[in-house]
Amino acid sequence: MQHRLVLLRHGKSEWNRQNRFTGWHDVDLADEGVSEAHGAGRALRAAGFQFDIAYTSVLKRAIRTLWIALDELDQVWLPVVRDWRLNERHYGALQGLDKAETAAKYGDEQVRLWRRGFAIQPPAVAEDSPYYPAGQARYAGVPRERLPRTESLKDTVARVAECWDDTLAPQLRDGRRLLIAAHGNSLRGLVKLLDRIGDEEIEKTEIPTGVPLVYELDAELRPLRHYYLETEAAAPAD
Amino acid sequence: MQHRLVLLRHGKSEWNRQNRFTGWHDVDLADEGVSEAHGAGRALRAAGFQFDIAYTSVLKRAIRTLWIALDELDQVWLPVVRDWRLNERHYGALQGLDKAETAAKYGDEQVRLWRRGFAIQPPAVAEDSPYYPAGQARYAGVPRERLPRTESLKDTVARVAECWDDTLAPQLRDGRRLLIAAHGNSLRGLVKLLDRIGDEEIEKTEIPTGVPLVYELDAELRPLRHYYLETEAAAPAD
Repeated sequence: MQHRLVLLRHGKSEWNRQNRFTGWHDVDLADEGVSEAHGAGRALRAAGFQFDIAYTSVLKRAIRTLWIALDELDQVWLPVVRDWRLNERHYGALQGLDKAETAAKYGDEQVRLWRRGFAIQPPAVAEDSPYYPAGQARYAGVPRERLPRTESLKDTVARVAECWDDTLAPQLRDGRRLLIAAHGNSLRGLVKLLDRIGDEEIEKTEIPTGVPLVYELDAELRPLRHYYLETEAAAPAD
Repeated sequence: MQHRLVLLRHGKSEWNRQNRFTGWHDVDLADEGVSEAHGAGRALRAAGFQFDIAYTSVLKRAIRTLWIALDELDQVWLPVVRDWRLNERHYGALQGLDKAETAAKYGDEQVRLWRRGFAIQPPAVAEDSPYYPAGQARYAGVPRERLPRTESLKDTVARVAECWDDTLAPQLRDGRRLLIAAHGNSLRGLVKLLDRIGDEEIEKTEIPTGVPLVYELDAELRPLRHYYLETEAAAPAD
């Protein structure tokens, strides 16, 4: 093994509990998600993991997951980089909608295509929507034309790939051990790149929440193996 | 006003409560310190403060203070830079000692000189001391000759001045609003630089814990005024 990185998907958020499309909306972890993050951090600590740098999105459910894991690792001093390209997929006009209501409105098949069709974008949000990221302070440094009004999984994978190429891969090549706390679809993008998974298959790849996913890579950053760390059973849902 | 920065000294730590010299030892906030940080964050929010970037040390009592304040500001997405040069003064062989015991051992006058003599260093720690920072993972990127075995306040001010010159001042000149969560003596260093306070006077300058200290600066980064934000009364000590 030449290089190692660990992917960590944030746990349950308040909107997951309400079964609403979240995307770039900045909801916090639910209590259960906080417990999942502690469990992930404890599992990393018990397995002797230490890191040199951490990456996360600009969304608080991922940032808080990282903070909790760093606390469990006693590594709160670790450099942390927040990168919008690790955000969840932008779900366009579906954001904020209850998933059952959306299905009733648009039909199950349409919703399935939006959620699972690799290159299919849900309807875009208007520029005056609160779900349009331009104008939000946290995206002030991002060129306006980069900020989406909706995204297909393909779009999400493309920005994650750019982050991998210009940021994550160079850090690994410099010998640093990376912890990446992010979201279902941005982590799916990394897994797709690492394991060269096809467009069809990646739609079916599910990464569990709150379970550290360890990748061991060779000198060319090709995966030698990956595995999930065993965690304690999450606290029962309320 | 051209530029603004806010300084925030972390609240009471576990070792403050025990009256021990802390320095670079990585103790956590006491419950009272956590309350102080929430109070500081709420005061900033109530006064309408928002920031573009935050700086802190690599010590968890300052980092946690920052995390809590960012949470209260709903700005956990803010870029955060951890810089060892914002650490507390390294108290050398005094670290870990109970202040009363130290006074009994060395005499009140000697301890007063170590604590208040601007250029006077306490005895240095040995290279095999747990209080010698070289070899600790968090200082891996720092040249060994930069890592102290003890520091006078003058030494602390010198590294803070370097951080100001190469990091903080350029950010301010670029128009960013800075929040700096750090320690009694590193913040004293910044105040000394900003207000051009003499070596004698700075020893007597006390910055209260958990109270945001706001500096408004002109285009050349000279202070126009500074003031403390009013916070709620801290929770009573237990």
